[in-house]
Amino acid sequence: MHPEFETYLQQQGGLPPEAIQRISDLAVQKTLRRNEHILNAGEICRHKIFVLSGMLRTFSVSADGSEHILLFSPQHSWTLDPESYDQQIPSRVGIGTVEPSEVLCWHKSNFDTLLAEIPQFRGYADRLISRNIYLNRERILTTLSGTAVEKYDHFVRMFPNYLSRLPLRMIASYLGISLKTLTRIRHAQLQRH
Amino acid sequence: MHPEFETYLQQQGGLPPEAIQRISDLAVQKTLRRNEHILNAGEICRHKIFVLSGMLRTFSVSADGSEHILLFSPQHSWTLDPESYDQQIPSRVGIGTVEPSEVLCWHKSNFDTLLAEIPQFRGYADRLISRNIYLNRERILTTLSGTAVEKYDHFVRMFPNYLSRLPLRMIASYLGISLKTLTRIRHAQLQRH
Repeated sequence: MHPEFETYLQQQGGLPPEAIQRISDLAVQKTLRRNEHILNAGEICRHKIFVLSGMLRTFSVSADGSEHILLFSPQHSWTLDPESYDQQIPSRVGIGTVEPSEVLCWHKSNFDTLLAEIPQFRGYADRLISRNIYLNRERILTTLSGTAVEKYDHFVRMFPNYLSRLPLRMIASYLGISLKTLTRIRHAQLQRH
Repeated sequence: MHPEFETYLQQQGGLPPEAIQRISDLAVQKTLRRNEHILNAGEICRHKIFVLSGMLRTFSVSADGSEHILLFSPQHSWTLDPESYDQQIPSRVGIGTVEPSEVLCWHKSNFDTLLAEIPQFRGYADRLISRNIYLNRERILTTLSGTAVEKYDHFVRMFPNYLSRLPLRMIASYLGISLKTLTRIRHAQLQRH
């Protein structure tokens, strides 16, 4: 049904072909335009989302209208609002695309069935959760520590191929620095090279 | 063996008395002085830690010597470096006390045995992990968004009883603002009241 996703799951290891087929069969594919929202703040997150292609972002909007980006979700990553999804309560964040994207969605009831039916899939999901915990802790430390230059350099090292795909204002929102500061940093670095 | 911890676990619900006894029996109690380290950056985190009393902090130290605080762990919370513990690799953070503390420690091999033996304990551990994910996401958004004043107000709302127990420099390290800025905010608020 979704050959690219099935290949991806095979590469993760540990899942028998019939399990991969079953997981793939319960997915619904969606095509999203640039800047389309798949979850709005205040809605309940009812789906697990896998990014087949493109890039999504998870963001919150302050009272003053400014957007803060929690996370970019590139090709072959999973995304959702965990608190809203687990507890079926309104989400405090929105999820939308940065560029035209293809995603696969599993309704929570279907995903819960898969996790209960397929122990190896549960193991895979647990490893993803662990990885997210490590990344979030690193993100907190990077956000707290470094100067604006260090934060930008860290971003470039971590996500070298994001730079040309993301508007500068989104990188600034992700780093928690102003667009003006980011522009100044980039200008200084270009002059140096 | 550890009556206060056993009462705490009873209150979490879902664990039969013999399971609580078994969990408690495998814990080793330690008494820590103020500012004592229980894990240093570079060491492998081999234990799950439960705070019986006192307060711990998880921190990293920048190249310039400044300390950044990822997390405060008060009475009746769990702490560890998850990446170091899960993968038995050197930790990038340290864990130490803010005030004299009593902790319980479980060696990873014992804790893994308990999780495998007691499904309800695994459920409890999973709920703790989920809660940590929600808190970490909120922490990232708060660190990214707000002004210094908003960050401080959020901290006061979230942790009203931490204020008198933590040195100001640690609150500043946790918020990612300078001690000077924090002192100015507090002074302005005291004048207003």
